[in-house]
Amino acid sequence: MISHLDRLFLDRTYELAARGIGNTSPNPPVGAVVARDATVRGEGYHHRAGEAHAEVNALAQAGDARGATLYVSLEPCKHAGKTPPCTQAILQSGVSRVVVGAAAPTSYGGGAHVLRERGVCVEVVDDDAARELVAVFASSTQSRRAYVALKMAMSLDGYVASRPGVAEWITCEEERLYVRELRYAYDAVMVGAGTVRIDDPQLTVRPPAQRVRDFVRIVLCETEGVPPDRRIFTPVPGYARTIVLAPAGARAHFSTLESVGDVLYVGEPDDEELDLERALHVLRARGIASALCEGGPTLAARLIAHGLVDKIYWAIAPIVLRGEAAVPVLAGTELDGGPRRLRFERLERVGSDAMLSGRFDV
Amino acid sequence: MISHLDRLFLDRTYELAARGIGNTSPNPPVGAVVARDATVRGEGYHHRAGEAHAEVNALAQAGDARGATLYVSLEPCKHAGKTPPCTQAILQSGVSRVVVGAAAPTSYGGGAHVLRERGVCVEVVDDDAARELVAVFASSTQSRRAYVALKMAMSLDGYVASRPGVAEWITCEEERLYVRELRYAYDAVMVGAGTVRIDDPQLTVRPPAQRVRDFVRIVLCETEGVPPDRRIFTPVPGYARTIVLAPAGARAHFSTLESVGDVLYVGEPDDEELDLERALHVLRARGIASALCEGGPTLAARLIAHGLVDKIYWAIAPIVLRGEAAVPVLAGTELDGGPRRLRFERLERVGSDAMLSGRFDV
Repeated sequence: MISHLDRLFLDRTYELAARGIGNTSPNPPVGAVVARDATVRGEGYHHRAGEAHAEVNALAQAGDARGATLYVSLEPCKHAGKTPPCTQAILQSGVSRVVVGAAAPTSYGGGAHVLRERGVCVEVVDDDAARELVAVFASSTQSRRAYVALKMAMSLDGYVASRPGVAEWITCEEERLYVRELRYAYDAVMVGAGTVRIDDPQLTVRPPAQRVRDFVRIVLCETEGVPPDRRIFTPVPGYARTIVLAPAGARAHFSTLESVGDVLYVGEPDDEELDLERALHVLRARGIASALCEGGPTLAARLIAHGLVDKIYWAIAPIVLRGEAAVPVLAGTELDGGPRRLRFERLERVGSDAMLSGRFDV
Repeated sequence: MISHLDRLFLDRTYELAARGIGNTSPNPPVGAVVARDATVRGEGYHHRAGEAHAEVNALAQAGDARGATLYVSLEPCKHAGKTPPCTQAILQSGVSRVVVGAAAPTSYGGGAHVLRERGVCVEVVDDDAARELVAVFASSTQSRRAYVALKMAMSLDGYVASRPGVAEWITCEEERLYVRELRYAYDAVMVGAGTVRIDDPQLTVRPPAQRVRDFVRIVLCETEGVPPDRRIFTPVPGYARTIVLAPAGARAHFSTLESVGDVLYVGEPDDEELDLERALHVLRARGIASALCEGGPTLAARLIAHGLVDKIYWAIAPIVLRGEAAVPVLAGTELDGGPRRLRFERLERVGSDAMLSGRFDV
């Protein structure tokens, strides 16, 4: 059981953790608080991979932490990676109690029993908010592929545009600011080749933001390439070279892109169509643990059909676009295999739009 | 300016008014409270057309109302209809102050100035909640046609079924209870001929409910009739004979329906297609001031295209139905004329579904 004060301090660790969102990959964002006599003695969060973990930062700020309680959003690690195990720092600090938001999703974490064996009282609260903070880390570590958040925007009747080949803003300004936050939070932003051809998006974070890690833009090409003069390839300070994912059996289509982007060939030499799952493995191997996919309809449907969407953000604009030529939010025939169930986690008003978020793991 | 106590008593009138929902048509639901010395002395609401208005019921319960304040969700009428004008009862009661939720939308109301001329202090608050209670009445009185609330249910990707000709429940149980409340609240429930042919719905309120007014079911036939053995024609106690709206130029298609329902022929003798707006005028002339339209996709699109939808209830089920044969939530080509804007008024979770409600009047 945790007390009301415990709850306040634990919630504070989530706020601190959130400061690392977008910067800590491949590590998860983590926050920590050291408190004694109902007073905060130290706070910290994980700033970036390779640097000190949240617990270590909070203990350092506290100075003398003997007899104090350490609150941490994620179970401390017992693993010596780029930094020494946090369990060691905790034991040395003389902290008598540790309250944990979420259990470690991998065996590298799992420091709770190490601490308990050495006489520290450990309580694992298992909060939704704490698990949400490590969802990308937990999923991509287990699957070994990039975590995919699919962000789509459609009219009330399920269309993204009133006819093919046109780029239309159907969503409101507030919605675009919402997407800006998402682009910041995920390691990379990804679109299909069709979207690059038709909408020619820049896919940058606007107004501009600074991030410890470079922003990354990805074009996922299922069979053919895209023109090299598209805006997604325009160099921008703070952005890595744009990544092109291409089927290994179609190199001829992609040679012109090698001068403007990093073309990653996926699959076997005779693969003329991109293997989506392998493409996501390639991304993670390159250090991209998560990607926000912003369409288009064909890529979105394929990702769903292949069970590769971990999270959705589905904006619904207050407009009816129905017409014979209107472009549906999901296209292609790959979903003919039958309905896919998901669950909504949140409904929000974002300006004049509705935003539904959820997951397919039902 | 109204006080905190005024606010409490006024809100109470809305609760009282709501007791009349479904029963008062063509009058709006209205509630009233008489209070003096911070204490409720009388409460009342309008039970059904032809019976006493809310103010009169509340004043009767209060007995001596001299110097009291009367709270009423809608501006009192100054009009002698089936009952004497409420302004007369208010003046006779000796009430010194009247607080009104919403101004009267028609000139039959408008009793505020009559009261003021006779020295009663009248404050019109103009609340959203109060206007919502009279929205159907205000709209149908002005337009002279039945008010149409369009209720649709679709998958996240905008489909009502994975293929044509099949009836599928894609929404959750809680959603069906939500629709039950709507069926109770509107004078009638209406569907297109296609829905009757394919889904063969009973369109009753289940679990059963009792209502002062008979429930009414309507089939709107744009060109052709429907088989007379459909469940919508099955007699049910508490339900009026089902109404069939048919184009006057297609009588031959509808003669078989005359024995099972009330067939109302609309338009000119050579109209082979139903004039939707005239059909709604015919309904109102028959005493049906509002209808909940539950599809299908063709009728829904036509109603929207013709600007005849006053309110939407749009359920979104957490399922993806995409497939080449999937049936879109709006069908036909009449919306080719261009996008239609609306505004969302409310987002709700209803069980596992999302429910968006809104209006087209932007």
